[in-house]
Amino acid sequence: MQAGKPVLYSYFRSSCSWRVRIALALKGIDYETVPINLVKDGGQQGAWGRPLGSGAFSLPRLTSLPPCAQLAIIEYVEETRPAPRLLPQDPKKRAAVRMISELIASGIQPLQNLSLLKQVGQENQLAWAQKAITSGFNALEKTLRSTSGKFCVGDEVSMADLCLAPQVANAERYKVDLTPYPTIGRINKTLLAMEAFRVTHPCRQPDTPPELRA
Amino acid sequence: MQAGKPVLYSYFRSSCSWRVRIALALKGIDYETVPINLVKDGGQQGAWGRPLGSGAFSLPRLTSLPPCAQLAIIEYVEETRPAPRLLPQDPKKRAAVRMISELIASGIQPLQNLSLLKQVGQENQLAWAQKAITSGFNALEKTLRSTSGKFCVGDEVSMADLCLAPQVANAERYKVDLTPYPTIGRINKTLLAMEAFRVTHPCRQPDTPPELRA
Repeated sequence: MQAGKPVLYSYFRSSCSWRVRIALALKGIDYETVPINLVKDGGQQGAWGRPLGSGAFSLPRLTSLPPCAQLAIIEYVEETRPAPRLLPQDPKKRAAVRMISELIASGIQPLQNLSLLKQVGQENQLAWAQKAITSGFNALEKTLRSTSGKFCVGDEVSMADLCLAPQVANAERYKVDLTPYPTIGRINKTLLAMEAFRVTHPCRQPDTPPELRA
Repeated sequence: MQAGKPVLYSYFRSSCSWRVRIALALKGIDYETVPINLVKDGGQQGAWGRPLGSGAFSLPRLTSLPPCAQLAIIEYVEETRPAPRLLPQDPKKRAAVRMISELIASGIQPLQNLSLLKQVGQENQLAWAQKAITSGFNALEKTLRSTSGKFCVGDEVSMADLCLAPQVANAERYKVDLTPYPTIGRINKTLLAMEAFRVTHPCRQPDTPPELRA
């Protein structure tokens, strides 16, 4: 590992990891990837107990923090490398970005992540994940109708968009019908066409298994 | 309702609401409380679909956002009313505050809130909530050992402390043994002695039922 180069502990399929990868790509920050297999390591709960948390980007003394600290990491990157902006300048728009981000990161993702789905039992997993995602997407679609332009909040890409695309990927993985969510679908399509979202996609990571590569 | 006075849609027992109440108390912001009964209204999922989300403090055009946007609301209050500070000035310390806040708000609270517990069935609720809280507190105690002073991060009260006290109250409600968490216990005790935490406590709200008042 090169001295001074930020290290990202990352799992190709983790939506938290993907969000941080997009932030780093948009900011043009070069980093070293250290893959962590959340499944083999006992899920995210297991990863919490490790000295290195997945997504614990370049925060010495904070590396024992949990993978669910994705927004904190993105805020840290934003504060220490402000350009290009991932939060708008206007406080109300910043609040909209943070609310959408939190709706996804606290209100949807934890209710359908690996460690939770293990607890609900194999036969209930799909229905459970679908319910969590559709319930959250109902609120999200309604919100985006009033906040979105080209992206989640207006016409500038923001932290909210970093949260959105990985959550839509999870929705697709759990076969959620996206027809009722045209705004989510439209923004997601725009995002996936962007270089920063494309190169950081789970299908193009160092730890992506050959059968899932694209 | 007085024109211009912020309105807080609040449920006495909601930890999200309590966190926002503490922020407002610390900042000295006077507000009007509109109680929303999350239980009668069908839980937080139900509240998401309402025109007013619990905790949707003073954000016109954002009032349809979900109660889980508590951190976004606190960040908005911080940006528009900076004194006294709820985030430290140093970026690494700010990251520590946000990580602890997110660990609680995304990593613990959604896994033991009302709407989730309803889904796991009456007979499993206590064990489920205890597991979610102890698993999170194991990570949190370890983290606080390296970040804390008098409070969660150093010697200044911060957003992390606003997240902590309501989560400890939830832990007590679900009869979690707090003996293995001396740092959490110590900080919580300090917090509960503060005026801003005391007056905003669930046992002293306009909608607190008489039998739960203190």
